[in-house]
Amino acid sequence: MERLDRKNFPRSEQIPTGEALGRTTSEPVYAKLSSPNFHTAAMDGFAVQASDTFGASLDQAISFSIGKKAWPVNTGRPIPERTNAVIMIEHVNFVNDETFEIEKAVVPWENVRRVGEDFVQSEMILPSHHIISAYDMGALLCGGITKVSVIQKPKVLLIPTGSELVPVSAIESCIPAVGDTIEFNTTILAGLVTQAGGTADRADIIPDNYDQIKQALKSGIESDYDMVVVNAGSSAGSEDYTAAIIAELGEVLVHGVAMMPGKPTILGIIKGKPVMGNPGYPVSAVFSFETFGLPVIYRMLGSSMCNRPNMTAYSARKIPSKLGREELFRVKLGKVGNRVVAAPLPRGAGSITTLTRADGIIRIPSNVEGIEQGSMVQVELLNLPQQIERTLVIIGSHDLTIDCLADELVNHGMYVSSSNVGSLGGLLALKNDTAHVATSHLLDEETGVYNWSYIKRFIPDVPVEVFHGVMRDQGFMVKKGNPKAIRGFEDLTRHNVTFVNRQKGAGTRVLLDYYLNKVGIDASEIKGYELEEYTHTSVAVAVLSGVADVGMGVLAAARALGLDFIPVATEQYDFVVPQKYLDDEKVMRLLEILRSQTFKSRVTSLGGYGVGRSGERLIESK
Amino acid sequence: MERLDRKNFPRSEQIPTGEALGRTTSEPVYAKLSSPNFHTAAMDGFAVQASDTFGASLDQAISFSIGKKAWPVNTGRPIPERTNAVIMIEHVNFVNDETFEIEKAVVPWENVRRVGEDFVQSEMILPSHHIISAYDMGALLCGGITKVSVIQKPKVLLIPTGSELVPVSAIESCIPAVGDTIEFNTTILAGLVTQAGGTADRADIIPDNYDQIKQALKSGIESDYDMVVVNAGSSAGSEDYTAAIIAELGEVLVHGVAMMPGKPTILGIIKGKPVMGNPGYPVSAVFSFETFGLPVIYRMLGSSMCNRPNMTAYSARKIPSKLGREELFRVKLGKVGNRVVAAPLPRGAGSITTLTRADGIIRIPSNVEGIEQGSMVQVELLNLPQQIERTLVIIGSHDLTIDCLADELVNHGMYVSSSNVGSLGGLLALKNDTAHVATSHLLDEETGVYNWSYIKRFIPDVPVEVFHGVMRDQGFMVKKGNPKAIRGFEDLTRHNVTFVNRQKGAGTRVLLDYYLNKVGIDASEIKGYELEEYTHTSVAVAVLSGVADVGMGVLAAARALGLDFIPVATEQYDFVVPQKYLDDEKVMRLLEILRSQTFKSRVTSLGGYGVGRSGERLIESK
Repeated sequence: MERLDRKNFPRSEQIPTGEALGRTTSEPVYAKLSSPNFHTAAMDGFAVQASDTFGASLDQAISFSIGKKAWPVNTGRPIPERTNAVIMIEHVNFVNDETFEIEKAVVPWENVRRVGEDFVQSEMILPSHHIISAYDMGALLCGGITKVSVIQKPKVLLIPTGSELVPVSAIESCIPAVGDTIEFNTTILAGLVTQAGGTADRADIIPDNYDQIKQALKSGIESDYDMVVVNAGSSAGSEDYTAAIIAELGEVLVHGVAMMPGKPTILGIIKGKPVMGNPGYPVSAVFSFETFGLPVIYRMLGSSMCNRPNMTAYSARKIPSKLGREELFRVKLGKVGNRVVAAPLPRGAGSITTLTRADGIIRIPSNVEGIEQGSMVQVELLNLPQQIERTLVIIGSHDLTIDCLADELVNHGMYVSSSNVGSLGGLLALKNDTAHVATSHLLDEETGVYNWSYIKRFIPDVPVEVFHGVMRDQGFMVKKGNPKAIRGFEDLTRHNVTFVNRQKGAGTRVLLDYYLNKVGIDASEIKGYELEEYTHTSVAVAVLSGVADVGMGVLAAARALGLDFIPVATEQYDFVVPQKYLDDEKVMRLLEILRSQTFKSRVTSLGGYGVGRSGERLIESK
Repeated sequence: MERLDRKNFPRSEQIPTGEALGRTTSEPVYAKLSSPNFHTAAMDGFAVQASDTFGASLDQAISFSIGKKAWPVNTGRPIPERTNAVIMIEHVNFVNDETFEIEKAVVPWENVRRVGEDFVQSEMILPSHHIISAYDMGALLCGGITKVSVIQKPKVLLIPTGSELVPVSAIESCIPAVGDTIEFNTTILAGLVTQAGGTADRADIIPDNYDQIKQALKSGIESDYDMVVVNAGSSAGSEDYTAAIIAELGEVLVHGVAMMPGKPTILGIIKGKPVMGNPGYPVSAVFSFETFGLPVIYRMLGSSMCNRPNMTAYSARKIPSKLGREELFRVKLGKVGNRVVAAPLPRGAGSITTLTRADGIIRIPSNVEGIEQGSMVQVELLNLPQQIERTLVIIGSHDLTIDCLADELVNHGMYVSSSNVGSLGGLLALKNDTAHVATSHLLDEETGVYNWSYIKRFIPDVPVEVFHGVMRDQGFMVKKGNPKAIRGFEDLTRHNVTFVNRQKGAGTRVLLDYYLNKVGIDASEIKGYELEEYTHTSVAVAVLSGVADVGMGVLAAARALGLDFIPVATEQYDFVVPQKYLDDEKVMRLLEILRSQTFKSRVTSLGGYGVGRSGERLIESK
C-alpha cells in the first residue's frame, strides 16, 4: 500500500525578513534584541537624574548646567548613563547658552522609553504557523531578526490533458477552429495554488494518450514537485486514462466522490506524493480541487485548513437538490432591507461565469433534499461582506443597458447583482422583498400602457415608484442576409422556419403574444414556440448558431452578434422601485446614472435605444 | 497653488491574462468568443438529429447506422452539422459494429451545450475596476481574451530619514551599538503598499540633514514615482525638516491632524504629485499612512477605498480617550460565550507589537470622551472573523509557559489572546465573562493554599474548576555575579539597593508581601517598592538595564535574560476555568496540551518549572 511521505512536510527555509510578507513561520521566533534596546528619550529635551529635579516649583526654580547635570537629547536617542528622565524642551527656561531652569520636577523614567518596554530579548515575537503580516515584518526586524524561518511553498505541477485542448497562445493571433477548446482550467488552478501560498507550474497540454499522460505524470513525480494534478480525464469515458495510470504507477485511493459538481474526482499516491485527477468542466475542476487539493496544500504549509468566511442568507428561491450527494450551488448575494438574499446561479458545470459572478457558495449536504424558498442558508463567501453590503439587487427583464449601469456603478464603489427572470418575475421579487429594483416592460394589451396594470394586479400591496428606463426597438433577429426572408409575424408559421421564444413572463413574450393575437395567429402554428431562452443575447445566439431561424429581441443584441434585424415595435423598459428603497444610496445613485449624459451616450451607441426620458419618474395613468 | 496631477490616473497597461491575478480591470471586458463556441457534446455517445429518434420505445426500438445517421462523439467535442442531440452511450444497444438501437427518443438539444450557453461573443465578462480572481482569469481566456487591460500599479518611493537609523543589513552580523535604531518602518509601509496593489521602493536612509532630504525628495518626484513618503521628521522638533522641505519644493496642505497616534502627519503636493510626511514611531507611521496614504493608492488604482471588515464587540475595559481628536486603539478580540470581547492593548506608539498582537482597531471619534466597560464598539478587523472564533482568551497572571501553550494550540488551528493583568484581574475577568480561562497563583497567607480562598471571596457566583498548571521557582533576579550581594528579604531595605515590584493584584506581589510580613519588613523601607512592572520579563529587563538592582520573578525569566537567580519559594500556578466553558473545544484542547509530554518537556527545558501534576483537576481543600 502506498503511503504519503510526510517526513518532508512542512519543510522550512530561511529568507530575509523583508521578503517574508504572507509567508508562514515554521517555528516560534524569539527576539534577539529588546525593544527599545536602550533607554530612549521619548521627547526632545534634556536628560537628567530625576532626583536632581525634586523640589522644583514655580516659587523655587532649579537650575541646570548643560553638559554637567543635564544633556540635550532628541526623541529616539539614548539617554546618557546615570540619567533616568527627560525634561521636555517646552518646560525649560534658558538662562543663557549653558544654563536653564525648571519649575517642575520629573519623576524617574518620565519621558523615557525603558529598555524592553515593548518586548525583551528572548521573548516570543511570533508563534509557529503564523502568517507574516506587514506589521510582523517590522516587529521581527525590531527584534533583530533579519532572517526568518518560513515554510517552503509547496510546488504543484498541473498537467492539462485532452486532445480537444489548444493553448492560450494558439488563439492570440487567430480565431480557434470549431472543436478547439481553449485550455484555461490550469490557469485557474494555478491562481488558486498561488493564493493558498504555493507555487504552480503548468505542463504542456497532453493529448488523450495513455503513454504520453503516464510519461508526464511520472516525470512530475520524479521532479521536485510536492503534488501533481491531472486535469482532466478523471471520468470513466473511453479516453479517460488518469485513474488507470495512477493505478499503474502507484495507488488510487478514491475514484468518484458524492459531490456535484466535482463527482469524477480521483485521489491517489505515487511514490509517497499526492496525485489528483480532476474533472474537465471548469466548475467541476474548481470544486474538486478546492475541496480535495487545496487542503493538501494548506497541510503542507502546516496550517489548519483556512475556511472561507461564512454568512447566513435568506434563499430567494427554492433550490432542489438530490439526496445521496453533496451539491454545491453558486449564488449571488445582496442585502435587501435587513436581510442578505441569496439567489442561485445556473447549475451548469461548464459555465465558468457562474463562478465569476458568484458571491458565495451554498453546500446542500447529501442527506438534505433541497432548500425551500425563504429558508436560511449558510453561504461560504467568495466576496468581502462589505462588497455585498454595497450591492444593488436588480431582478426582472433582461436588457443590455444593465451592464452599462453596473459598469458605471462600479465607479462609485457599488456593485450590481442582476438576475434575468423576466418582467413578471421581477415584480414578484419585489413582493418577496428579494430585490431593490425590478426591471419591466409589460404591455397592457387593452390600454397600451406599460407596467402599471401588472403592478396593480400582481403586487398591489407593494408601494412602488416607476422610473422610465429606455425606449427600445424590438424586432425579429435573423441571420445576415435574412435567408428565410422573414418579413412579418405570418412568416413565423412557415414550415421551413424555426422560431426561438423567450420564457413565460418575459416582456418580449408578452409583446409577441400581443401581436400574434392582433394578427390572429395561433401559437401552436409556430414551430419552436416552445423553445425558450432567458435573454435577448441567448435568442440572438440561437439564431446565429442555427438552432433557430428567427427570434424576437432588441436591436442591440442583434447588432452585437452581427445579425439582421426587422423592427416590429418600440417599447418602454422601466425600473420599478419600492418606495422604501427610494432613499437607499445605491438606488439613488442608479437613478442619477440613468439621468446622466454619460449613460445616455453609452446606451445610444449600442443602437436601437431612446434615452430622452431615462430616469424620469412616471405618474400612473388612470 | 499646487494641484494634484490627475490626468495620469488611473493609467492602464495590457498584460497577459494568465498574469492578471489580483490586478484591477481598467475598462469593461467583452467576450471575443462565445462559450461554448460550437455546439458541444455534453455526454459521450452518438450525435443524431433528434427527430430521427422520435417514436423510439421499449416496444419499438429504432436502429441507427453509425456514420450515416449517427456519429460517435465524446464530451466536449463538437457535434456534426445537421445533428442537434446526443444519445448517451449508456442508452445505446449495439447490434453490430456498424449499427445500434435505442429504445428512448431524445429531444432537440438534449445532452448538447449550445453555442453561447454560458456567454456570447460581445457580452461583458468583467466590468471596469474589478479585481481579477483566479476564476476571472479562466472566464477571460474562455472568452478569447488573452491580454487584458489593467490599471498600472502605483509606484511609491519610501524615504527613511533619521540620523539614529541603521539599515537592517548593519545588524546582520553584529549587535547594534547603543543609540542605533533599526530602520523598519519603510519595510512595514512597503508591505502595506504591496498589499494594496502598488509597488514600493525604499530609498537609502538619509540622516537628519535638510539638503540631503530635500535632494532625495526632489529626485523621487522627478523620477516616475506616483507618490513619495518621507518617514519621519514630520513633527516640529529641531531636526524635523520634512514640512519645510515640502513647502520649499511645493505646497504643504496639512501639517498635523486630530488623530492619535499619527498626529504629526504632513500632506503636500510637489509638481502635481502627492507627498506625505509620516511620524517616526512605528504605530504612528502605520496609522498615518493607512489613514492618509493608502486611500491615495486605492484612488490611483481607480477603486473606492477598500475598508476593513467591521465587527461589533463588547469592550472588556473602560477605554479613556481625549476630546478633540480621534484616538485609535489596538485591541485583542476573542469570542467568549456569545459575545466578542475587545481588550485594549497598551497605547504606546513606539510598541510595534501592539500592532502585531492586535486583532482589530477601535476608533474613538474626537467628540467622544472614551468608552465605558461593557459598551458595544465597532472594531475594524485585522484578522479573519473565523480566526477570532477560534481564539482562546486567557486573562490573569503572566507566565512564560503561556507562550508555549499558544504555540502548541496554533498546531491545532487555535489561537491565544492573553492579557497580563495579574491573578486577581484574571479572576475578575471570569466574573465579567470576558475570558475563557484565568491564570492565578494567589497564596492564602493563612492556610498556605493557592487560589481557592480568593475564588470564594472574589467570584463566589462563578462556578469554576481549577486545573494545576505548573510549579515554579520564584526568587530574586539580580545582575550577573550579584554585584549588590542580595541574599534575602532584609537586603531589599539597604540604601544602595533599588527594588522593582510587580503590580497590585499580581500573585508575585502577594508572595512578596507574604514574606515581607513573615520576616517583619515594612514595604515603605524598600526603595522602588512603588516601581511596578506587569510581567516577569519586564522585571528582569528592569534589572538587566539598571533601572533596579533586584526584582522578584520566575527562574525562566532570569535565565532568558542571563540574570542570576536566588530562589525564594516554589509556588503553584493554576488555570481557573468557568464550568460553562469546560466543553469548549479550545479549553478542552488547552487541558489536553497541559497534560501532554510535548508541553511538559518544553516547559521543563525553560528551567525552574515542575510539571508533575500539570493539567490535573484540583479539588477544593476544605
